[in-house]
Amino acid sequence: MTELDFFFYPQSIAIIGASDNLRFGYSTTLYLLNSGFKTYPINQKKKELFGHPTYNNIKDIPEDIELALILIKNDFVLDAVKQSIEKGVKGIIIESAGFAETGIDKHVVMQDEIIKLCKESHVRIIGPNCVGITNFSNQFTTADISFDRMQKGGISIIAQSGVLGNIFLDWASSQNIGFSKVITLGNKIDVDEVDMLEYLERDPETKIITLYLEGTKRGKNLIRTLKNVSKPIIVLKNGRSETGSNAVKSHTSSLAGNDRIYDAIFKQVPGVFRVNNFYEMFNIAQVFSTQPLPRGKNIAIITASGSLGILACDLIEKYGMSLARLSEKSIQALYHVIPDWVSLKGTIDLGPSLFETFNKSIEIIGNDENVDCILFIYSVPRWPLERLNIPVSPLFRRLKKYASKLGKPCIVCAFGSRWVYDYLLESTSKFNIPQMRRIKEAIKAFKMMHDYQKMNN
Amino acid sequence: MTELDFFFYPQSIAIIGASDNLRFGYSTTLYLLNSGFKTYPINQKKKELFGHPTYNNIKDIPEDIELALILIKNDFVLDAVKQSIEKGVKGIIIESAGFAETGIDKHVVMQDEIIKLCKESHVRIIGPNCVGITNFSNQFTTADISFDRMQKGGISIIAQSGVLGNIFLDWASSQNIGFSKVITLGNKIDVDEVDMLEYLERDPETKIITLYLEGTKRGKNLIRTLKNVSKPIIVLKNGRSETGSNAVKSHTSSLAGNDRIYDAIFKQVPGVFRVNNFYEMFNIAQVFSTQPLPRGKNIAIITASGSLGILACDLIEKYGMSLARLSEKSIQALYHVIPDWVSLKGTIDLGPSLFETFNKSIEIIGNDENVDCILFIYSVPRWPLERLNIPVSPLFRRLKKYASKLGKPCIVCAFGSRWVYDYLLESTSKFNIPQMRRIKEAIKAFKMMHDYQKMNN
Repeated sequence: MTELDFFFYPQSIAIIGASDNLRFGYSTTLYLLNSGFKTYPINQKKKELFGHPTYNNIKDIPEDIELALILIKNDFVLDAVKQSIEKGVKGIIIESAGFAETGIDKHVVMQDEIIKLCKESHVRIIGPNCVGITNFSNQFTTADISFDRMQKGGISIIAQSGVLGNIFLDWASSQNIGFSKVITLGNKIDVDEVDMLEYLERDPETKIITLYLEGTKRGKNLIRTLKNVSKPIIVLKNGRSETGSNAVKSHTSSLAGNDRIYDAIFKQVPGVFRVNNFYEMFNIAQVFSTQPLPRGKNIAIITASGSLGILACDLIEKYGMSLARLSEKSIQALYHVIPDWVSLKGTIDLGPSLFETFNKSIEIIGNDENVDCILFIYSVPRWPLERLNIPVSPLFRRLKKYASKLGKPCIVCAFGSRWVYDYLLESTSKFNIPQMRRIKEAIKAFKMMHDYQKMNN
Repeated sequence: MTELDFFFYPQSIAIIGASDNLRFGYSTTLYLLNSGFKTYPINQKKKELFGHPTYNNIKDIPEDIELALILIKNDFVLDAVKQSIEKGVKGIIIESAGFAETGIDKHVVMQDEIIKLCKESHVRIIGPNCVGITNFSNQFTTADISFDRMQKGGISIIAQSGVLGNIFLDWASSQNIGFSKVITLGNKIDVDEVDMLEYLERDPETKIITLYLEGTKRGKNLIRTLKNVSKPIIVLKNGRSETGSNAVKSHTSSLAGNDRIYDAIFKQVPGVFRVNNFYEMFNIAQVFSTQPLPRGKNIAIITASGSLGILACDLIEKYGMSLARLSEKSIQALYHVIPDWVSLKGTIDLGPSLFETFNKSIEIIGNDENVDCILFIYSVPRWPLERLNIPVSPLFRRLKKYASKLGKPCIVCAFGSRWVYDYLLESTSKFNIPQMRRIKEAIKAFKMMHDYQKMNN
């Protein structure tokens, strides 16, 4: 049992502000009451919620409570915290908003009072102004998500914003990206990114950490912790500009700070990689979480579209990687398989012959010692898939087989309509090959993996 | 009737290499033979294709042929071109690949012979190594696409690559982005981007031109033409790097040239905007094609997610735009509608109160004279939409109404799963509001629209 485990594996939970009205709190109440977690709803107006008896006050619950979840209006939160502490909880998650982030004096004061209680009692608090915790291993959650649609995986999230706790999970699930722990921290009056980085470093299910930060109050601790964490960390730090940093204040009452300092810190700490948006963050994290680290920086590009191949070449050079030069032996072998007019000096552009030649080509390319990473740019029109019912699964099975054999990371960039994308995703997911729409994100992923590999050698 | 009209509105077509085998050419043959276009299939092995009698040779066709479409293997193309010229066609589209782009001597020679014939005869040729033309107004196409799924609109494409002629159209159609003319040029032995820019400038259905370029042989003409075109032009030029520019050679046998020179040209010509990838290209083009030009550079951000609002602020500053400051009058009016803890100094973050407050807020924001552009960042979890069946259509109807009233461009950035995205897209499309996933592309679109507006004043 690790400190803070009660947030992720609570023995018992009280929901203060449990509700069966279709509003904030509804989903969480419904889910937890019907789950295997021992859950007690607090509601002063209703005697029953979804068939479960309610309590007037957390102190009326006849059993010990480990975790209190607070979902009520800001004005009532302070009292609820007091009562939870008196009840003897170990942790409190305050989801309610309307505290220091509003900039309004009385709300700032309310938050300060809660901080005082927290310090005196040593009860740990997450929030306010967040959607709390999700743990994919025991399916515990305080956020509005549906585990039926989601995948378990090696990525964990520490975020200062609620949008990461549900909306981006929902997006990631439609990409078949899998998660371990998701932590949204809000205004961070107690538990912060430093605590959670330490927690996730020890969590055996977390392979890679994604961190969304608006500001920090413990700069030195953060740097030290970032340095101590052995797992790769992908950071998104907003509030780079003056306009953005003003917006940070009214979001989670953080100080965004000078972006150059943050940038210097992130660059200076090995294993920490800065990204520019949430899609980059999760697409790259998925590559880290599912693919082996490359041994070198040579990327082979297999494509049916010359122009997308060129785009990839430009990005390879931009990010300091190299286009793989196939060995003479591979080139000779490939010309037994592919038409003589396919040039093998740069990208491997199989053109319309892709379906006939890919299976044999990938064996040769995968085995080539000059190839460290494989990017397969899939750009075939919809109609042959649709009309001929071409099974793509064998294609990706072989890609996986020959990439895995020598431990090479591979990524599929898929182009075309939703229909084509999903048709492919079904197969790539089966073989744990990350699939994305943007070549830039694929090349950046290889670059970061390569840097991380060098750092560990 | 304009010169080159026969490529877009052919009176009669011969397909050399018409086929009912499920391979390249199948779809085009099937579509054109069953369309209203007078189409004659040439096939030496079969007497009938899809119930239509075939001809051995284009010269056997008893009627005049305006356009010859060549789909046969590279070795036979030269003869087909000769016969087409003898038949008296006005234009030829050669889709077949395997010419100068292979770098193989005999293929280069074949291409040179075709060029010679073209110059002597004055017959215009598009290609080789392309998928030809698509015209959305009469539904003529030589590419593998299905008009049932596509929208007509104001965007035209000039591209040196086939991937733009089908795969990206297929993607754009799932975004409800609408097109007018699509031209893929391949190796450009005759008709090139200069010809087509001139053609599209005169085309009343084309509101905005997107240009994908790998290189040009007529640099001075291109600059002059870019300057003369009054419509906005969005350019993607690949081959920026050495690796990429080598790849260009083996794709369309073009010389990529020095990227700095291209960059200087694009920056120097007003109304020409350079983008970095195909998604940017079409998302931004759609904004130009459906939205009014902004009168100034103040962007109002309406959101339910603080962190996405901050991201938008950072990008607004990065691209030299401004976050709109609402007038005192608007702020007073808004506080009658929204909770007092919503800060109105920066982004307008309505949080969970979005559904109750948006309708009234948008009227005030839309009418505010300090607002020139409206970005609505939609980030609501899936469950309320799904369980409560919340209709989003009234939301977007009002957004459209109040944005249109004073001629303000608006964009919706939608976050969450595919399901949520499509749920919204159905409504935004109805009101002609561009919807996208990336805030960066929205801000860049406003920025380019603003620059274009300044240039025209």
